[in-house]
Amino acid sequence: MPQLSVKGNLMPSSPIRKLVPYADKAKQRGTKVYHLNIGQPDIASPVPALDAYHHLPFDVIAYTHSEGTPEYRKALSDYYKGRGYEVEPEHFIVTNGGSEALLFTFGVIANPGDEIIIPEPFYANYNSFAVQSEVKIVPIQSSIDTNFGLPPIESFEEKITDKTKAILICHPGNPTGYLYSKEELEKLKDLVIKYDLYLISDEVYAEYLYGGEKHESVLGFDELKDNVIVIDSESKRFSMCGSRLGAMITRNKEVLSRALKFAQARLSPVLTSQYAATAAHQNVGAYFDDCRAEYVSRRDLLVSKLNEIPGVICPNPKGAFYCMVELPVEDAEDFAIWLLNDFNLEGETVMVAPGNGFYSNPETVKNQVRLAYVLKKEDLERSVEILKAALKKYPGTIH
Amino acid sequence: MPQLSVKGNLMPSSPIRKLVPYADKAKQRGTKVYHLNIGQPDIASPVPALDAYHHLPFDVIAYTHSEGTPEYRKALSDYYKGRGYEVEPEHFIVTNGGSEALLFTFGVIANPGDEIIIPEPFYANYNSFAVQSEVKIVPIQSSIDTNFGLPPIESFEEKITDKTKAILICHPGNPTGYLYSKEELEKLKDLVIKYDLYLISDEVYAEYLYGGEKHESVLGFDELKDNVIVIDSESKRFSMCGSRLGAMITRNKEVLSRALKFAQARLSPVLTSQYAATAAHQNVGAYFDDCRAEYVSRRDLLVSKLNEIPGVICPNPKGAFYCMVELPVEDAEDFAIWLLNDFNLEGETVMVAPGNGFYSNPETVKNQVRLAYVLKKEDLERSVEILKAALKKYPGTIH
Ligand SMILES: Cc1ncc(COP(=O)(O)O)c(C=O)c1O
Ligand SMILES: Cc1ncc(COP(=O)(O)O)c(C=O)c1O
Repeated sequence: MPQLSVKGNLMPSSPIRKLVPYADKAKQRGTKVYHLNIGQPDIASPVPALDAYHHLPFDVIAYTHSEGTPEYRKALSDYYKGRGYEVEPEHFIVTNGGSEALLFTFGVIANPGDEIIIPEPFYANYNSFAVQSEVKIVPIQSSIDTNFGLPPIESFEEKITDKTKAILICHPGNPTGYLYSKEELEKLKDLVIKYDLYLISDEVYAEYLYGGEKHESVLGFDELKDNVIVIDSESKRFSMCGSRLGAMITRNKEVLSRALKFAQARLSPVLTSQYAATAAHQNVGAYFDDCRAEYVSRRDLLVSKLNEIPGVICPNPKGAFYCMVELPVEDAEDFAIWLLNDFNLEGETVMVAPGNGFYSNPETVKNQVRLAYVLKKEDLERSVEILKAALKKYPGTIH
Repeated sequence: MPQLSVKGNLMPSSPIRKLVPYADKAKQRGTKVYHLNIGQPDIASPVPALDAYHHLPFDVIAYTHSEGTPEYRKALSDYYKGRGYEVEPEHFIVTNGGSEALLFTFGVIANPGDEIIIPEPFYANYNSFAVQSEVKIVPIQSSIDTNFGLPPIESFEEKITDKTKAILICHPGNPTGYLYSKEELEKLKDLVIKYDLYLISDEVYAEYLYGGEKHESVLGFDELKDNVIVIDSESKRFSMCGSRLGAMITRNKEVLSRALKFAQARLSPVLTSQYAATAAHQNVGAYFDDCRAEYVSRRDLLVSKLNEIPGVICPNPKGAFYCMVELPVEDAEDFAIWLLNDFNLEGETVMVAPGNGFYSNPETVKNQVRLAYVLKKEDLERSVEILKAALKKYPGTIH
C-alpha cells in the first residue's frame, strides 16, 4: 500500500481512549463504573429545542447557507448582545461544533510551522487540530499552586517568535475550570497588541460560572476588534453536544471572509440543529439558572469531599464542569488503569481521565487527573468514596 | 494584523458564488429566477426520517461515538450488503457529510505536496479540500465528445509521479452525470494495482442511475480491498443535505484507524441525523424508485429540449442529477451573468453554473454550463424556453 500521511500518524488519540478497553473489561466482569472521565452532561437539552425537533416545519432537510441560517445567526447575535457585546449576525460563521470553529481558525491564521501559544494543561483536541493544520503548539505551563491561573506574562514573551500567530486561551478552562480575571485578560490584551497577535478565546463554557460573576468575553476589548476570534458552541451551553453546532465569532472582516471559504467547501452546517438551537435561544427561560444551580451544588460536593482525602489537592474551579486534581501518586495514568483493572469497592469503581493527556508533553505532570462533574450528586459522592478507598489500597499511593 | 495563511487565500470560492449578487439584483428588480445552478433536491426527505425527528426517543442530544452510532453503521452496512457488497459496520467512519469524508481521506493518505489525479470536469470542492490538505490535484481532461467517459489510461500513466497517492473518481459524476462502465472500472483497477495507488470513489449519487442498471461500486473489487476508499452521503440519497451525514468506507484497517483519529478530534457526528437516517434505511420502501422515476422524467425532458436548441450539445447523463452542456457561446460565464443582469423573458430568467468552475484551470473549457434537474418539470420546461430565447438574443451567441 502507498504510505499514509505523516499527519495521520501524528494525530494524538484522546487521553481517555487508552483506558476504554479496561473499562469495557471491568463492565464485562460485572463491575459498575462511574464515569468521571467525560464531558458529556447528563442534563436534558432545553424543552424548546426538543419541541423544535418534534415539530420541524419543513419536509426537505436542505442545505443552509454555509455561514449558517439568518435566524440562527440573529439568535446568536441577540444572545451576545444580551450579554453586552456588540456582535452582529455577520460576525458569526456557524460550524459543526466548536471543533470545526477551531479547525477553521487554525487554517485561516496559520501556515505550516506557525506557532500558537497555549497555557497548559489544555483541551487535548487542540493538539489534534494543530497536527491537522500543521501548526505548532507552544505550551506554557500553569500551576496547580495558583489554581492554574495565567502564567507570568514574561513566560509568554520568552516564547514569542516570528512564527507566533496567536495565543489561545480556554475561558473558563477545560480541564482546569479556571476563569481568567479581568486583570489577567488585560495583560493578555496588552501582549497581543504589543506583538500583533491573534487572541483565540475558547468560551464554550461561558454560561457555566459558579461565583455569581458575569462572564467577561474577550469580545469586550474594543481595541482587539481585529485580533479576537471567539470559539462558541451549543454543546455544553444547551447540553446539545450531539447537535454538532458551534460558531467562530470575529469582527475581523478578512478572517471572516477566509473562514467563509472553508465553510463553503463543506457546504453547510446542520439545518435541524440550527433550527432547534434558535428555538432554545428564543426561549431560554430559567434554563441556565437551573443548570448552574445543579452544577454548582455538584462542584461544591465534589471539591469538598475530594479535599478531605489525605494527599488530594483540588482547587475550586470557578467555571465549566471539570476539576484538575492532584493525587498522592506518582503516575496517575497507572492509577487510572489500576482502578479499572484491579480494584472495586463492593463491585463498583471509577473511571478518571489521566491528567498528563492535557499537557503537551505527557511527562510534564504525572500526578493529576481530570474529573468531570456531570453525574448526579449521589453518584459523585459514591465516586469519591471509591477513590478514597482505592487510594488507601493502591500500591503506588504516597502515604 | 498578523498575516493570514496562504491556504486561506488559495481556497477557491464556489463557481456559483460570483453570480449570487447578480441573481440577488435580478430578484430585487422583480425578475423570477429559475435555479438550475444548485444541487439541492426539491424532493421531500423520507417520511420515516421526518417521523424519527418528530419522535426523538431521548432528551439529551448527546455525543455519539466518533465513528458513528452502532445502529447507523449497522444500517449502512446492511444497505451495502443489500447491494451485494461485503462491508461490515466497522468499515464505516460516519462523517459530517461526504464533505468531511473527503477531508479525512485527503488528510489520511497525503502529505503536503502529494498528488491526487482526478478526471475533469470535477466537483469543485475537491479543489478546496485539496488546498486545505495541501494536496495537489492533477487533472486529466475528459471530453464532451465521449460524454465525459474515462480518459485513455495512458493519459493517467503520463501523470503518475512518485508523489501520486490516489486516483479520485466521481461515480456517477457531478457535474457530468457520467457513469463509468465495468470496463472502465477494470482499467482503473489494473492501473491502481500496477502503481500501488489508492482509488477514491465518490459514490454519493449511486442510487440515482436512470438506465435500469445496478450501480457498480468499486467496493466490488476484492483485489482492491486495501486500496479503495468510498465516499458516501445521505445528502442526495435521502434528500437530507441539511442533516450533514456521510461516511468514509474502506476495508483498509490502517486507513480506518488513522481516519478514526481525525473523527475523534472533532468528537462526534450528528446524533439526530444518524437516528433519522437509520430510520430511513430501515424503511426505504419505494423511496428510491419514486425519486428515480421523477428524476428520469426530468432528465429526459431537459436533455431532449436542450438538444433541440441550435448549437446546444447535451450528452445524456446516466446518473446523478446534473448535465454538463455545451452552449454556442465563447464564454459561458459571461453568458450566465448576462442572463441575470441583462435578460428576462416576460419577467423570468435562469441561473446556471458556469462550467469552467469545474475545471482545474478555468480557461480550459469555457463554453459549458452545468444544469441541475432538481426542479419540477414545468419549471424545467420553462427554463429551457428562457435559455433558447436568451441564446437568440445574447450578443455573444455563435450562429
Ligand atoms: C474547551 C473545549 N473546546 C471545544 C470543545 C468542542 O466541543 P464541540 O465541538 O462539541 O462544540 C470542547 C468539548 O468538550 C471543549 O471542552
Ligand atoms: C460529488 C459530490 N461529492 C460530495 C458532495 C458533498 O456533499 P455532502 O457533504 O452534503 O455529503 C457533493 C455535494 O454536492 C457532491 O456533489
